[in-house]
Amino acid sequence: MQENNDTPQDGTNKASKGGLIYGDYLQLDKIINAQELQSEKKGNKIHDEHLFIITHQAYELWFKQILWELDSVREIFLNGHVRDERNMLKVVSRINRIATIFKLLVDHFAVLETMTSLDFFDFRNYLVPASGFQSLQFRLLENKIGVPENLRVPYNRKHYRDNFRGKANEFLCRSELEPTLLQLVEQWLERTPGLEPDGYNFWGKLKINIERGLNEEFTDIQSKATFEEKEDMLLEFNRRKEVLMSMFDEKRHEHLLSKGERRISYKALQGALMIFFYREEPRFQVPFQLLNSLMDIDALVMKWRHNHVCTVQRMIGSKGGTGGSSGYLYLRSTLSDRYKVFVDLFNLANFLVPRHWIPKLTSSIHKFLYTAECCDSSYFSSDESD
Amino acid sequence: MQENNDTPQDGTNKASKGGLIYGDYLQLDKIINAQELQSEKKGNKIHDEHLFIITHQAYELWFKQILWELDSVREIFLNGHVRDERNMLKVVSRINRIATIFKLLVDHFAVLETMTSLDFFDFRNYLVPASGFQSLQFRLLENKIGVPENLRVPYNRKHYRDNFRGKANEFLCRSELEPTLLQLVEQWLERTPGLEPDGYNFWGKLKINIERGLNEEFTDIQSKATFEEKEDMLLEFNRRKEVLMSMFDEKRHEHLLSKGERRISYKALQGALMIFFYREEPRFQVPFQLLNSLMDIDALVMKWRHNHVCTVQRMIGSKGGTGGSSGYLYLRSTLSDRYKVFVDLFNLANFLVPRHWIPKLTSSIHKFLYTAECCDSSYFSSDESD
Amino acid sequence: MQENNDTPQDGTNKASKGGLIYGDYLQLDKIINAQELQSEKKGNKIHDEHLFIITHQAYELWFKQILWELDSVREIFLNGHVRDERNMLKVVSRINRIATIFKLLVDHFAVLETMTSLDFFDFRNYLVPASGFQSLQFRLLENKIGVPENLRVPYNRKHYRDNFRGKANEFLCRSELEPTLLQLVEQWLERTPGLEPDGYNFWGKLKINIERGLNEEFTDIQSKATFEEKEDMLLEFNRRKEVLMSMFDEKRHEHLLSKGERRISYKALQGALMIFFYREEPRFQVPFQLLNSLMDIDALVMKWRHNHVCTVQRMIGSKGGTGGSSGYLYLRSTLSDRYKVFVDLFNLANFLVPRHWIPKLTSSIHKFLYTAECCDSSYFSSDESD
Amino acid sequence: MQENNDTPQDGTNKASKGGLIYGDYLQLDKIINAQELQSEKKGNKIHDEHLFIITHQAYELWFKQILWELDSVREIFLNGHVRDERNMLKVVSRINRIATIFKLLVDHFAVLETMTSLDFFDFRNYLVPASGFQSLQFRLLENKIGVPENLRVPYNRKHYRDNFRGKANEFLCRSELEPTLLQLVEQWLERTPGLEPDGYNFWGKLKINIERGLNEEFTDIQSKATFEEKEDMLLEFNRRKEVLMSMFDEKRHEHLLSKGERRISYKALQGALMIFFYREEPRFQVPFQLLNSLMDIDALVMKWRHNHVCTVQRMIGSKGGTGGSSGYLYLRSTLSDRYKVFVDLFNLANFLVPRHWIPKLTSSIHKFLYTAECCDSSYFSSDESD
Repeated sequence: MQENNDTPQDGTNKASKGGLIYGDYLQLDKIINAQELQSEKKGNKIHDEHLFIITHQAYELWFKQILWELDSVREIFLNGHVRDERNMLKVVSRINRIATIFKLLVDHFAVLETMTSLDFFDFRNYLVPASGFQSLQFRLLENKIGVPENLRVPYNRKHYRDNFRGKANEFLCRSELEPTLLQLVEQWLERTPGLEPDGYNFWGKLKINIERGLNEEFTDIQSKATFEEKEDMLLEFNRRKEVLMSMFDEKRHEHLLSKGERRISYKALQGALMIFFYREEPRFQVPFQLLNSLMDIDALVMKWRHNHVCTVQRMIGSKGGTGGSSGYLYLRSTLSDRYKVFVDLFNLANFLVPRHWIPKLTSSIHKFLYTAECCDSSYFSSDESD
Repeated sequence: MQENNDTPQDGTNKASKGGLIYGDYLQLDKIINAQELQSEKKGNKIHDEHLFIITHQAYELWFKQILWELDSVREIFLNGHVRDERNMLKVVSRINRIATIFKLLVDHFAVLETMTSLDFFDFRNYLVPASGFQSLQFRLLENKIGVPENLRVPYNRKHYRDNFRGKANEFLCRSELEPTLLQLVEQWLERTPGLEPDGYNFWGKLKINIERGLNEEFTDIQSKATFEEKEDMLLEFNRRKEVLMSMFDEKRHEHLLSKGERRISYKALQGALMIFFYREEPRFQVPFQLLNSLMDIDALVMKWRHNHVCTVQRMIGSKGGTGGSSGYLYLRSTLSDRYKVFVDLFNLANFLVPRHWIPKLTSSIHKFLYTAECCDSSYFSSDESD
Repeated sequence: MQENNDTPQDGTNKASKGGLIYGDYLQLDKIINAQELQSEKKGNKIHDEHLFIITHQAYELWFKQILWELDSVREIFLNGHVRDERNMLKVVSRINRIATIFKLLVDHFAVLETMTSLDFFDFRNYLVPASGFQSLQFRLLENKIGVPENLRVPYNRKHYRDNFRGKANEFLCRSELEPTLLQLVEQWLERTPGLEPDGYNFWGKLKINIERGLNEEFTDIQSKATFEEKEDMLLEFNRRKEVLMSMFDEKRHEHLLSKGERRISYKALQGALMIFFYREEPRFQVPFQLLNSLMDIDALVMKWRHNHVCTVQRMIGSKGGTGGSSGYLYLRSTLSDRYKVFVDLFNLANFLVPRHWIPKLTSSIHKFLYTAECCDSSYFSSDESD
Repeated sequence: MQENNDTPQDGTNKASKGGLIYGDYLQLDKIINAQELQSEKKGNKIHDEHLFIITHQAYELWFKQILWELDSVREIFLNGHVRDERNMLKVVSRINRIATIFKLLVDHFAVLETMTSLDFFDFRNYLVPASGFQSLQFRLLENKIGVPENLRVPYNRKHYRDNFRGKANEFLCRSELEPTLLQLVEQWLERTPGLEPDGYNFWGKLKINIERGLNEEFTDIQSKATFEEKEDMLLEFNRRKEVLMSMFDEKRHEHLLSKGERRISYKALQGALMIFFYREEPRFQVPFQLLNSLMDIDALVMKWRHNHVCTVQRMIGSKGGTGGSSGYLYLRSTLSDRYKVFVDLFNLANFLVPRHWIPKLTSSIHKFLYTAECCDSSYFSSDESD
């Protein structure tokens, strides 16, 4: 009753003469003939190894798709196509697609967890030293999004890249040199219209407003009746003031950058906050969606890592690991904020202020924010034709 | 920035000397080099075709896994291994796994739907006449679960099987001749302990109890005060009586069987109801879980079909379809109860009765239901050794 | 060990002096003291009735939230606020939120299905004649989205509204008179810039292009070599031509409208197709997202209905139903396209054409589509202040 | 268009004369009239506060359901009903239900995250000092499952319980004194048949087999050819030997218990491992499912915590927190293994051995494991009656 060597899908080849066949199009002869059980090869076929293979192959298929989307988005940014704002829909849709795929990948663990630790134990020794760590596509994906090489946790006491050889190692090197999604988004944020110090000067205006706002708050508190209340309020006020004013401390920003606690330039941070505050302006609506979707991806990668850790703890406990890795403990260490690429976007929430503190748009910048930029003059036809 | 011909995963091959490599084990050279865009081949590369290919390949990977589980469960039933009740855990776990996979497959549509109808239109003509209908694995899966050949909706005015040729057609023929999961479960249900007319005689006892219960209800209603109330209650009572008594009409059962409205034998139906009613008896706990999981699978296949219809309507509207099929309308027709395999289990809910109408177990059958059956006398060691 | 009358949450009231308390804020004294088991009241406490109550209460909480979002979106449209395109982000975000909630509601059935038909049978008679059909909020939700009163399936042989009395009936009447989301979107679509016959004249241009395109295709086919091939191609060509040209048949549109097979005006249909074709223009990006999200809602409501049917069949079979309804069969009938509100958006997929058939934008309309409309001149400050 | 004071559901009250009404049954007058926006009360109605309230109310509804199930399961264990193995189906079904609910709760965050940090900022000051930490039901739930009081992270520098006053504090105290699910499962595991040192003596047999197995492995390695290979293998062998032999070190177990790194008694651990190894024996099938489901709950609570942290970081950044808590950082600290209740079950995976090392069952114990225990002699009728 099991699949034979002449597997079912072969038969579809001649299903209709001429024209494309479903099975050929999808190259099913490759896809569904790529499951070879090590346990069977060693003469002790274990039923559940098939699930293990299929799940990992499904992961790799989707990693390929994510890389496909990631590369296309990076290309749009890289070639400056994003300056023509017609491309923003494409960018945000593809980033959303990556998020949707990652949601699905998180759910894959539910399937893998139908295999108990006992079922896994029956064949896991056959897999040594292969290990999920060796997924080249996942490492590329991390690199291309922007996990920084110097913040990575070593694996088996080696630099992560030293676990790969030959072409794989080259691919990784190359991916580290290419501009990451993070860097491309950073450059794009730096160009946010309205940041120009000699123009709308968002940052300068914001600083003035925040200082004024804080002063008013302080006066308010001082005029409060009871001493006790006042003390608590001042404590809280000072805490808040410190956080808000720290925003304008460029040196501190550089320091945090050097430690890896911030990841984007001072100017890009300003651009991101500006988009946050004026998200309803027509030109900022889709950029705001984009910032949200980037946070989605970060959060979903974290959920994927967390679910991975849970599954691994269940399968092999806290001690084991194929491929010689420390398994559970290694994976736990990747749950830290070091692996969160767009951490600065999350932390914008630290810098929010009441709506009436946000600088009011002037009519010129306002008009500007209603008008999108188009770079491709050859795009449309002249009025008379077509 | 796009993947080259010498794709990343090639490099992993020599990642460590000796021992199994992740990429080799998973045959990633096949898996992630099997995406060839027809649009690109025709000189008009459409970005989203990649998603279309990956999604369908992921589906086929999982169909293979489902067939793997399905075949293994059928083998256990077929070889009588299920008589040794130690095998029940395996059976119910694997059926549950199939359900878990189907849940994941339903969620796959969310990813596919990130492609809009416009994106699909850009390349769908390149795919003609390939069509999802031609998925051999899905047809096999339906056959092996038990979708009856004679209840199938024709496709392109042809018998479903005539859309496949060569070996694929043979595989389908063969799968129609093999015992389906439905048939194997039916035979197993027929052996439910307690059905023996000369033994515990569950069916006989149940009939007596139901008749007695209904009589008591009727007397109760008669003694009710107001005329109006009585009328309504009698109406409802007669409706219920008819439904309940129809259970014991074997001829009607055979008639419904011949029309495809019921699918399992009269005796199997009795077994299923017996397991329902006495599900808490130790020997019936896992069998009861199994019946529930079989309904899960049926319901999930239906949800998969329903989601498929929704996606297709969105992608191609009500008119189109690759492969010349009527697309949307064909798929809609597969949503009927004809494609529900374990419909009898769902309909057991029609035949439920108050707990005190259920025949009380006698001590002998009770004891029996606490004792599992073991067929494999060679299994355990003799008392002295080990 | 069970909750007492003096339930836990009471205690939180004094958790900290002054200030708002979590339990008070959420009015938990109401929320978690609103579970009264009918079975317990009748002296036969059935454990699972608690789950039944909680699940339905959770549904009603979320229905309230959906109505909240729906009303706010309708208000934006109704008050013309949508003309100021700054409001589009709000509209599309809230429609997306409704979709996200519906996804969650679909998943609620998994929890309800942990209750088997037997568990439900133990208490379902205590609930008669209450029925889920009586959910006023769900009927309001359908009305406000735009399920048309005259296409509704009767329930218990009565007009749906006659199953409600007093204020509930009034609320339903009123909701039928209010503009539905469908109607508001229709009016908005009719104003799509570029539709003006004396302006860009999208529809006129499109018709010309399609006719030209079809003629070229016909000539191509005629010049083909073999007779057989030609015949097939002509057949397919004529089918396509008929579908495409039917677009421009206004009488047919009115006819389909009168039958309920189309739901939006001829002009609105044009607007929707225009947004589809030019979705990448800055002004159309968010409107295009909106059209997609409206389809999401329609599809998700359908999935909710479908899952509901599956759960009901499992719980009560094909015969029963609390509240005297025909249950399963009634619900099945609501799965038809009659209950799909934005069916015209789905069917736009019938009318897609190759990209080069789409009229090229003229530079004036193109510029126009880069510039959003703002109505609220009082919104921004003058250049000097702030 | 907004809901009025005389809300819709009031009207359903008289929907049909006599009989139960849907809205009354569900007490919808309470449920959907319990949303009062603090922002509105303060004269500045913020649309999104409604979502915030509804989401938290939905959480509390489900917490109530989880407590309902948890209490019922604990009662079954507490009253010794679990000795009658007919109750195992109920226990495992209810634990599964809790897991299913938690899955749904994890998905709730997707809805809450449709609210951006900016939307939240608009009203979050109105909520001070209310905080999610104050959810009494969630603390009860943790206590009843078995989060140990002494391993809890302090909150606002106070013992967790000191953040609650009055009755809430009492409820928490009481819940700490009641037997937890963990303790009840522990006691049940200690009674696993086959552990008796003077009977089947599983632990003794296992120790002998493991020692013998390790010796054989050692001999195997010694006879290996190359020196290099040998060294690596010995290293790995010793690591494994240490882990496996540590199992039998009762003193070490007591030490780990005292540090909170293990949570169940030495004997209970033996019982759990025995159920793992002999899970296919009829009497162990449902117990094995139970152990798996308990791990599910633990893992899902962890996923809930992790998703909570992600949402909070997004909403308020790393600095803020209503209720004066450190918010993000506090929540991060609850992600540690200290909050994992059934950590010992996960770590069983450390102690797995090849199948042929597992002691073979003797025929007497084998027979025993095919026979379930029934304690309720009054349960069944005598043979003659009924």
